[in-house]
Amino acid sequence: MCPPGCLHSICENATRRGLLKAGFTLGLGAVAATVAPGVKAARAAPLSFTETVDMSHALYEGFPTFSGDKWFTVENIVNFAKDKVNLNRWTLMEHTGTHMDAPIHFSADGMTADMIPLSDLIVPVAVINIAARAEGNADTSLTPDDIKAWEAKNGPLPEGCCVVMNSGWHRLVDDPRFTGKDGEGKNHTPGFHVEAAQMLIGERNVKGIGVDTLSLDTGLNSSGAFPVHYEWLGSGRWGVEAVANLDEIPESGAHLFLGIPKVKGATGGPTRVIALL
Amino acid sequence: MCPPGCLHSICENATRRGLLKAGFTLGLGAVAATVAPGVKAARAAPLSFTETVDMSHALYEGFPTFSGDKWFTVENIVNFAKDKVNLNRWTLMEHTGTHMDAPIHFSADGMTADMIPLSDLIVPVAVINIAARAEGNADTSLTPDDIKAWEAKNGPLPEGCCVVMNSGWHRLVDDPRFTGKDGEGKNHTPGFHVEAAQMLIGERNVKGIGVDTLSLDTGLNSSGAFPVHYEWLGSGRWGVEAVANLDEIPESGAHLFLGIPKVKGATGGPTRVIALL
Repeated sequence: MCPPGCLHSICENATRRGLLKAGFTLGLGAVAATVAPGVKAARAAPLSFTETVDMSHALYEGFPTFSGDKWFTVENIVNFAKDKVNLNRWTLMEHTGTHMDAPIHFSADGMTADMIPLSDLIVPVAVINIAARAEGNADTSLTPDDIKAWEAKNGPLPEGCCVVMNSGWHRLVDDPRFTGKDGEGKNHTPGFHVEAAQMLIGERNVKGIGVDTLSLDTGLNSSGAFPVHYEWLGSGRWGVEAVANLDEIPESGAHLFLGIPKVKGATGGPTRVIALL
Repeated sequence: MCPPGCLHSICENATRRGLLKAGFTLGLGAVAATVAPGVKAARAAPLSFTETVDMSHALYEGFPTFSGDKWFTVENIVNFAKDKVNLNRWTLMEHTGTHMDAPIHFSADGMTADMIPLSDLIVPVAVINIAARAEGNADTSLTPDDIKAWEAKNGPLPEGCCVVMNSGWHRLVDDPRFTGKDGEGKNHTPGFHVEAAQMLIGERNVKGIGVDTLSLDTGLNSSGAFPVHYEWLGSGRWGVEAVANLDEIPESGAHLFLGIPKVKGATGGPTRVIALL
């Protein structure tokens, strides 16, 4: 069933895609006389907050990665003792540390990171906690029933929100369980079930999904099929992975600020995620 | 003269430095039982906003740099046509595109980027416009008189704010004037005067300064002396460079969100800067 706001959301998304395409085709001048598209975003209602929470893990050379390879290196170029200036060079895969996945990451022609609308970078967040279940079963997933249970307790998902899985894995970043690799090279970590992604796409108005593991899918890359990545990012929506400190924000009522570097053509990027309460 | 709030600010800064040092020496557990220092920040008063403005330039391989060298490269690692996934590797200097300078950039033992307090990442912004003067003189600088003129019009600088120079240079990012190199290899671009930095350190409570050029100092690196970098970052404060769209926010009343990647030991980093209005 299409809930209230669903049709409105489909129209809004269609218009947004149309505007973005127009921006590409006609150039900035044809779309807005003085301001490039996406530079300003008005909110439907004022947002007020009194507290911030850092939802980002610190990134360093040994930070765990999806593939197990080293995905972030730092090279000191000049240093204060010798040069009176400190400066480093980073080499990194776009999907390292706490980071966003842009739709293009798992689609042929989806939005790149720099095209994600400004209005998507501050959104309500719904935290769905499956940590108790995941503690006993690392292969568990966030299902449609978990979404329904959250709504039964908190009311409908906020329009245009980000739904984040709290599996407890954010507390395991320094533990081998964070990547959960077994003796046969398979990973055991929680993630979204593809039916939950399909429900959020078809029956709710949700902009992004997030996880406290390294992958939107269960088992990182164990299956090789990435059903949630293809379903979710392929629908034109974005994801955020390796979200930290999820026990420090309420399951309803907070907003997320997603500070992703604005890199042309990027498929994602290390993101400073901060919650507004 | 020490303005109202000055002593309070000095005490606050001293406490902050003390806590940071304690965090290094004693480990996280000794400082806070349940939450690592800096994970949460309470505001003195609620902050409400109804509009956001993107203050970040898009970053790409040819983005102008301080040195004139290529400071950002992108390499495609896997692509959808062949691999059904898109993923790139970036190689970058920390000080490229719209970015922050951490105190350690121009000091022996200042804060690294990951240690900048969460409360510093959402701050009031005062925009001081010297664009009319800079239009006729690229070597002009933001002086104590410009700060006094802003205050005469808008009242005292907000406590804990970021003071940003609008020289009009943010509009020149695709123009050779952005780096302003002359036939003799010297650069001609506006920046802060060292006396303005000294005034803000000694007589106001200011957390950061920002510019719409590639350097806090005038002439980028022409003098080789970097007086403002040493004075400002050496005092334990941060900077933000290559801020975009400064004509789109008011000179008083907005806040800046500074989404800097949380990289251990970093001297700065490409930052998603967004204004809250």
